[in-house]
Amino acid sequence: MKTAKTLNIAIVGTGNLATHLAKALAQTEHRLLQVLSREKARAAQLAKPLSAEGIDSISALSPELDMVILALTDSALKSKYIAQFPKDLIICHTSGSVSMRVLKSHKNHGIFYPLQTFSKQKALDFSRIPICLEASDNTVLTKLKLVAESLSSTIYEINSKQRKALHLAAVFACNFTNLMYDISHDLLSDAHLEFEILRPLILETAQKVQNHYPFEVQTGPAVRNDHKVIGAHKKRLDNNPDLQEIYMMLTHEINKDNEEL
Amino acid sequence: MKTAKTLNIAIVGTGNLATHLAKALAQTEHRLLQVLSREKARAAQLAKPLSAEGIDSISALSPELDMVILALTDSALKSKYIAQFPKDLIICHTSGSVSMRVLKSHKNHGIFYPLQTFSKQKALDFSRIPICLEASDNTVLTKLKLVAESLSSTIYEINSKQRKALHLAAVFACNFTNLMYDISHDLLSDAHLEFEILRPLILETAQKVQNHYPFEVQTGPAVRNDHKVIGAHKKRLDNNPDLQEIYMMLTHEINKDNEEL
Repeated sequence: MKTAKTLNIAIVGTGNLATHLAKALAQTEHRLLQVLSREKARAAQLAKPLSAEGIDSISALSPELDMVILALTDSALKSKYIAQFPKDLIICHTSGSVSMRVLKSHKNHGIFYPLQTFSKQKALDFSRIPICLEASDNTVLTKLKLVAESLSSTIYEINSKQRKALHLAAVFACNFTNLMYDISHDLLSDAHLEFEILRPLILETAQKVQNHYPFEVQTGPAVRNDHKVIGAHKKRLDNNPDLQEIYMMLTHEINKDNEEL
Repeated sequence: MKTAKTLNIAIVGTGNLATHLAKALAQTEHRLLQVLSREKARAAQLAKPLSAEGIDSISALSPELDMVILALTDSALKSKYIAQFPKDLIICHTSGSVSMRVLKSHKNHGIFYPLQTFSKQKALDFSRIPICLEASDNTVLTKLKLVAESLSSTIYEINSKQRKALHLAAVFACNFTNLMYDISHDLLSDAHLEFEILRPLILETAQKVQNHYPFEVQTGPAVRNDHKVIGAHKKRLDNNPDLQEIYMMLTHEINKDNEEL
């Protein structure tokens, strides 16, 4: 039964985040009523198993809705499109890098930014995903919190400026980290070694910083300032100038930190 | 009781790896007899709680020993020093980057390279650490395997060339990854945000590649070729040219991979 604390929600989008979010919301006390996508079939494919409705136009939005969550790519978050949504709705987006101003056509608006890397390939426990909130006013913030707290045990209130810094930090901590994994994969592959051999090290490296700060647990030739090993590594990368430059630049960055301590 | 399958072992060194290895060996069917260090007090500090003896010179090595494991820094692995050990011993080192040739003073020698990042701050479950072996002959290899299998469930036989490639790969997968964490820490700190907010993302990023290859799960603006976000990030880093250069170079590297697919 719907109470003042139960919100009726529609999700716009069918991408990775929309999919994970819709599935997680369907498990809460809130009601996922609709999924909106330009392609009705994709909307229905996501909505149906969750007892929601798949729709393909704003005009089909239910009058019972309290909130619409735009789980779209940054480039799809256009203010002209957003302005077409009914004005009495709370409207949110989920982007780390798009300003809240894009939502200003609506009096009640906010940001609902789950800080995680979403892939189709992997199921996720939403309860451990930090959700970052920002809202046009305190009444909206309270409602966003109701939804966020039903999904996750970690909620942060951060402003747009902080959110942009966070998004950039996440590119380093996630996207560039995955690139480091990928480079190591290629180096192993060249030596006829399986990626499997590095998986425990990768996991331990991430686990270490769960209870420590990264600068406390830095290891390796760069932090030891081990010129012999660094020189040997540099030489090994002679046939790959891009990687060699990355190696030397990151080594320098670690060294620099070290000298500052 | 000692059998043909039980080895008497001494560890040389008292650093992070020596400490973790000594503690783990003391739990196996093999016998850690001695810890050797230039500083007798440090040797005793590690050895005593493990019912072993702390010594400070090669002449004090027990005649009952079968194997000596040199858990030393690369620069301490000098062939002149190693040649002073009794010639009937199996002698091994634990380095990812030093050639096996440094041990050639001894007929029976090998490499015992645990692939993990060892910090004093954090206890480790040795059973999940891959141990990479190489030996002067099959008899020695069999003995190294006896020791390795008593410690870990994952053993690899790899040659010196592969080991060097692996060590370089580990620098990317561990040391440079930790640098990415550290950079994200600093970016958050500048925005008055706690590192805590990124910890779940860091863990998930590492967990993702436990069952997938990194190139399968790459996310972020670089792989999407999202010029708008990349441009905004670049601008944010205007006041830090080193970080800006790192950002652009790693973005280019991800992009390049993407174009190759």
